[in-house]
Amino acid sequence: MSVKSRVTLKNGSRINYDYLVIAAGAVKDYAAIPGFREYGYSVCDDYQAPRMWEAIQNFKGGNIVIGAAKTRWDEKSTDIKLDAPCEGPIGEIMFMLDFYLREHDLREISTITVFTPGKIFFDDVGPKIHKKIEPLIVKKDIKVVYEKVICRIEMKSVHFEDGTELPSDLTLVIPPYTGPDVIKESGIGDQYGFIRTDKSMRHPVYKNIFVVGDCNANSMPKLGHIATIQADVAASSFIKEITGEGEVMEFKPEVFCIMNRGGSEATLILSDTLFGGKVDITLNGPLAHIMKWGFDVYSYYTRGKLPPEFIQNSLEKMLKEFK
Amino acid sequence: MSVKSRVTLKNGSRINYDYLVIAAGAVKDYAAIPGFREYGYSVCDDYQAPRMWEAIQNFKGGNIVIGAAKTRWDEKSTDIKLDAPCEGPIGEIMFMLDFYLREHDLREISTITVFTPGKIFFDDVGPKIHKKIEPLIVKKDIKVVYEKVICRIEMKSVHFEDGTELPSDLTLVIPPYTGPDVIKESGIGDQYGFIRTDKSMRHPVYKNIFVVGDCNANSMPKLGHIATIQADVAASSFIKEITGEGEVMEFKPEVFCIMNRGGSEATLILSDTLFGGKVDITLNGPLAHIMKWGFDVYSYYTRGKLPPEFIQNSLEKMLKEFK
Repeated sequence: MSVKSRVTLKNGSRINYDYLVIAAGAVKDYAAIPGFREYGYSVCDDYQAPRMWEAIQNFKGGNIVIGAAKTRWDEKSTDIKLDAPCEGPIGEIMFMLDFYLREHDLREISTITVFTPGKIFFDDVGPKIHKKIEPLIVKKDIKVVYEKVICRIEMKSVHFEDGTELPSDLTLVIPPYTGPDVIKESGIGDQYGFIRTDKSMRHPVYKNIFVVGDCNANSMPKLGHIATIQADVAASSFIKEITGEGEVMEFKPEVFCIMNRGGSEATLILSDTLFGGKVDITLNGPLAHIMKWGFDVYSYYTRGKLPPEFIQNSLEKMLKEFK
Repeated sequence: MSVKSRVTLKNGSRINYDYLVIAAGAVKDYAAIPGFREYGYSVCDDYQAPRMWEAIQNFKGGNIVIGAAKTRWDEKSTDIKLDAPCEGPIGEIMFMLDFYLREHDLREISTITVFTPGKIFFDDVGPKIHKKIEPLIVKKDIKVVYEKVICRIEMKSVHFEDGTELPSDLTLVIPPYTGPDVIKESGIGDQYGFIRTDKSMRHPVYKNIFVVGDCNANSMPKLGHIATIQADVAASSFIKEITGEGEVMEFKPEVFCIMNRGGSEATLILSDTLFGGKVDITLNGPLAHIMKWGFDVYSYYTRGKLPPEFIQNSLEKMLKEFK
């Protein structure tokens, strides 16, 4: 990628462009945690997830430590700086692992400790949601420790920047996020490989470049739902640019996800407090689990498509009833 | 099919059996309504549905008449005798058509009249559900007429056995149900081609024959959900027969369906009052619509499979919260 309106593909071929949409995602920087390769496990891709599943099946009781690493953001390009850009997977791992251990009569001979790099666990949602989720965590006998920035994993322990450590027989982490190398090298992003845009998803200098999804410096938290909102904004912005018609959609981000919690349990989360809004709600129970399944099934069979517009309309209507 | 423990296939080949499971369904007897072929439309198969859709698209306003024909049941083989074995599709047609006409600015120049052969519309569910659905029908300006047994469709009218008629520019009906010819000819069913079984889904005389689904004389209403319950009972009964192990599941039928009502609206119905129970509930709104979509998507992509057991467990848990 260069500022010459040209992209170079891996096979060496070059393509000139009039407009460029970058949706290159973020990279999970496993190598940033010494000892991860030997003693750490993770969940967010199809190499790490089966590797973790094998480790869980071999686990016969002991101390489990779960948490997200701290991600660094560029002061100038990222406005909202979450220490962990999304702790949803941490929530899913801890609850589902608790469920699994109980099913396998291992829970009583195991501890689950969750560390978070920030002062607040699930920092991307607001106090009403925290109040709903905290009792669930306590009920499952999961201990949460705060302001712990992971710096090293050893065979029997996890070490933090403040010099403390936790004993651990099974360490499950979300590594720090970084932007893709291609962006770092392109000169159009920040030091970490993320790209700042204006609110219409356009690069402030190279106006013919649009950036959506995790590689956008202000996609925060790093969440599929926010990527799709950005895509809609970018599309409206692009249509206005080339046709002169329509209006650029206002970018109104919100956190929306469903966290599976083992068995039939799940928690739907909808919140915009991180962006100054007042919506901060959960829906607990098997219904949320069914909804996540419906989404997964559709996405699986259509190879990654989002549910059709009429279903998104239903969802919006339903969520409005909550609000 | 014969009582000689042998079935004959359409291609003439014969197969002897030790055990036979009959799941031949019911037949919608369109020919039983004179004038249907010329002036009537219906919805329950992939020939009738597109034909009806074309008629709806050509409709430019006028009188619409919708209803189910009366089905005859054998006194001795069918215990619960519903005049219309399932009016769910009638509910879907009338609400979705109302929605469609409003979208196309045709509602004000059209009337929708629904006839039912019995004294009660949606006779397979109880008074609590009727109370919830009636206001929706009134709100949509849909008129319901009772004890009207259709006997003829003409170009501009629908005629009933009591000598009355309704003016109609578009007539949409569910025809009477009958059993398949193969059962009528086999000698193991009743005069209408339905087969009575005991509560373990076994033929009372030919104990090596199991019957599940619409062709079972006591599958009432004729509903996919009840067919799957019967299949579970038949399977447990068959397992006990050949292994001597396990127990025959108790047959506990219930009416469970989701009726789309146009746009994001839908109504989930769960009721067992027809079978002497006390459950009689609805869930209205976009959530029910999302649930039906999830079911449809899964069934479509898996070519007819039911959602996996863990999702059925979630559903059961959710429905228990209702009850």
